[in-house]
Amino acid sequence: RANGARLWATILETAEFGGTPAGGINRLTLSNEDGQVRDWFRKACEAAGLTVSVDALGTQYALRPGRDMSRKPIAFGSHLDTQPTGGKFDGVLGVLAGLEVMRSLNDAGIETEAPLLVVNWTNEEGSRFAPAMMASAAYAGDFTTDEILAKRDAAGTTVAEALDAIGYRGVEAVGTREIGAFVELHIEQGPILEAEGKTIGVVEGGQGIMWFDGVITGFESHAGTTPMPRRRDALLALSEFALAAERIALHHAPSAVATIGEAAILAPSRNVVPGRVAFTVDVRDPRSETLDAMATALSEAAAEISARRHLKIALTRIWRKEPVPFDPAIVAAIDASAESLGHPRRRIISGAGHDACNLAAKVPAAMIFVPCKDGVSHNESESATQGDCAAGADVLLQTVLRLANA
Amino acid sequence: RANGARLWATILETAEFGGTPAGGINRLTLSNEDGQVRDWFRKACEAAGLTVSVDALGTQYALRPGRDMSRKPIAFGSHLDTQPTGGKFDGVLGVLAGLEVMRSLNDAGIETEAPLLVVNWTNEEGSRFAPAMMASAAYAGDFTTDEILAKRDAAGTTVAEALDAIGYRGVEAVGTREIGAFVELHIEQGPILEAEGKTIGVVEGGQGIMWFDGVITGFESHAGTTPMPRRRDALLALSEFALAAERIALHHAPSAVATIGEAAILAPSRNVVPGRVAFTVDVRDPRSETLDAMATALSEAAAEISARRHLKIALTRIWRKEPVPFDPAIVAAIDASAESLGHPRRRIISGAGHDACNLAAKVPAAMIFVPCKDGVSHNESESATQGDCAAGADVLLQTVLRLANA
Ligand SMILES: NC(=O)NCCC(=O)O
Ligand SMILES: NC(=O)NCCC(=O)O
Repeated sequence: RANGARLWATILETAEFGGTPAGGINRLTLSNEDGQVRDWFRKACEAAGLTVSVDALGTQYALRPGRDMSRKPIAFGSHLDTQPTGGKFDGVLGVLAGLEVMRSLNDAGIETEAPLLVVNWTNEEGSRFAPAMMASAAYAGDFTTDEILAKRDAAGTTVAEALDAIGYRGVEAVGTREIGAFVELHIEQGPILEAEGKTIGVVEGGQGIMWFDGVITGFESHAGTTPMPRRRDALLALSEFALAAERIALHHAPSAVATIGEAAILAPSRNVVPGRVAFTVDVRDPRSETLDAMATALSEAAAEISARRHLKIALTRIWRKEPVPFDPAIVAAIDASAESLGHPRRRIISGAGHDACNLAAKVPAAMIFVPCKDGVSHNESESATQGDCAAGADVLLQTVLRLANA
Repeated sequence: RANGARLWATILETAEFGGTPAGGINRLTLSNEDGQVRDWFRKACEAAGLTVSVDALGTQYALRPGRDMSRKPIAFGSHLDTQPTGGKFDGVLGVLAGLEVMRSLNDAGIETEAPLLVVNWTNEEGSRFAPAMMASAAYAGDFTTDEILAKRDAAGTTVAEALDAIGYRGVEAVGTREIGAFVELHIEQGPILEAEGKTIGVVEGGQGIMWFDGVITGFESHAGTTPMPRRRDALLALSEFALAAERIALHHAPSAVATIGEAAILAPSRNVVPGRVAFTVDVRDPRSETLDAMATALSEAAAEISARRHLKIALTRIWRKEPVPFDPAIVAAIDASAESLGHPRRRIISGAGHDACNLAAKVPAAMIFVPCKDGVSHNESESATQGDCAAGADVLLQTVLRLANA
């Protein structure tokens, strides 16, 4: 078993890096706060006798040798970056439980056949740089390292510059690190486990995701003198589009979701009819065909609104991640581990994207979920119990032992 | 007659201060660019033999003596600040035509009975600091100087700090400057004169204005895992409110208008359901009762949306300016001047707020409009012809002579 109390203490300790007054964490990827927690993680891994290295996109790998060094390591972990209004568990639990697995094995003097590897993937959240799960996508070959290094945040800073600013542009070539299997522990970020009284979610796959960038170009004009019918108001067009996106998601209920998470008026002023609005759209469903149908419906809505309101709506798909099935053997190992520990469990599909979803294209991968309060995530009030975190770490430890000694 | 060619040259010359690539001006009140155009204006006035002073809110007054110094000066002018996406004429025309009146009288060696005063009012636009027409409102006694000095822009800078930063916090007490009458030349900022082929609008009054600050508080949650019906999405609530405001204005067509000019998500992120949105509302109509009816309808819409979507909508009225009738004698003087010059003209109500609307509470005041292209204003493409600007300056000059020598 993992040491649940020690795991909990590290969760509280690292929550100080970017901690907010409301009890959450604002630790955007490659920010100074992200640099601080990375330094902490490196030192903790070294103190546990692990060999730490960093790849060209800043991902941290910490290796524990196995008896058979010809075997590929069994890897586990998640991410230490957060949303601007993030909580203490999203990503953090998976990395710190990985560290705890290493520490607990050390305490018990247990050697494994295969080596073990705990990983902290760069920019899982996708809030500062799009898309989300960026480094694991590059690892899996979806993007080249140079493509990722050139991506810019809203302030115009590139990933390359941000890596250099905190000293985390490593030398290891992305995607060259050998991995035999990948297991990720994470909070569910949804309401199902809590509602059904289950401690462990055995994750069978992740739903599909599309991200769009949108720009509406109307015409700035005077708020006091422009008659309502003559206006080409970009914010009213966005309003109709946002409500259309909600309707389109509800049409594919209960599985589909659609979200406009960012929307900004260019040069806003109280007495100017908004002329230009930039926005983002996040669309998800477990079925590929539903993603297609929703993309079509969104385009149709944009066309109808722009024709009626005499303005332009440009909608560009910047990312599409197909639904991912996890590896049945890893899923079975997780299930068997949860059963052996006696935890109430159920099979589940992930609503969020995760690094494991990218890894799955290249290596056998699956995930372990634990409940979070009211299913709330991407919120400073995100919460999970010490007991559930410990249960998740125990299932992770048992699964890793099964895979490493098989 | 005024020298229309010289007037046009000063319009082009000062358009360099804050000039944008698209041919507009971005010269927010009390910015460095505003400081530059103020310096230019002070020097030009001094070169024309005028005595320039500055009051405690930065308003510039340039006096030309009259034969009878016991008479209160006849004042005219407007403002040199612009919107972030402003044009070359809004406000600028009135101040520079005022300077041109002084220069033309000098050229012709004409003395007037009453002294003349050209004024550049601070913060007419209201884009950086609310409300609009701030300094003229303080002059008229609607606010104390200290109330205005304490107002903050979005970055938290106070009016006092902004005045000090550009060296325009004068010593003259606000509202003490004697003014016998006030005449403001301005582009119409609406489509009526152009559509009817009139060169001069004889402005009989200004419509009423209300400004609101709004905050919607929902709940941030994960874009991938939060089922649509469980969301408390602040942007969807804003979308419904914006469309309700449009319907409410159309219900009072054709006179009423309503505009959401600013709207910002707090801590926006692509994969976070927006939890908090701040926005502004601008509502106008020439009748006081319609303003009341619209305020009630907006509150009802906010209550209905917030109850249905389980979030809070706080709507605070931060400004109300009643409809303003201008002084019939000044209106008649403008009408007679336009007639004597042979310009096609019509009576008109201003859709925009103007410093003259504030002055009207304290001194006899009225306005002269000239057409602008397509009725477009608060846009970088705002445009007026050299001929119409010269015609407006001529009517201003004749009106001023009538009033100063009466
Ligand atoms: N786990 C998680 O919140 N990942 C962020 C990427 C996503 O939006 O699903
Ligand atoms: N003239 C003008 O555009 N004034 C700004 C104040 C308003 O919004 O009406």
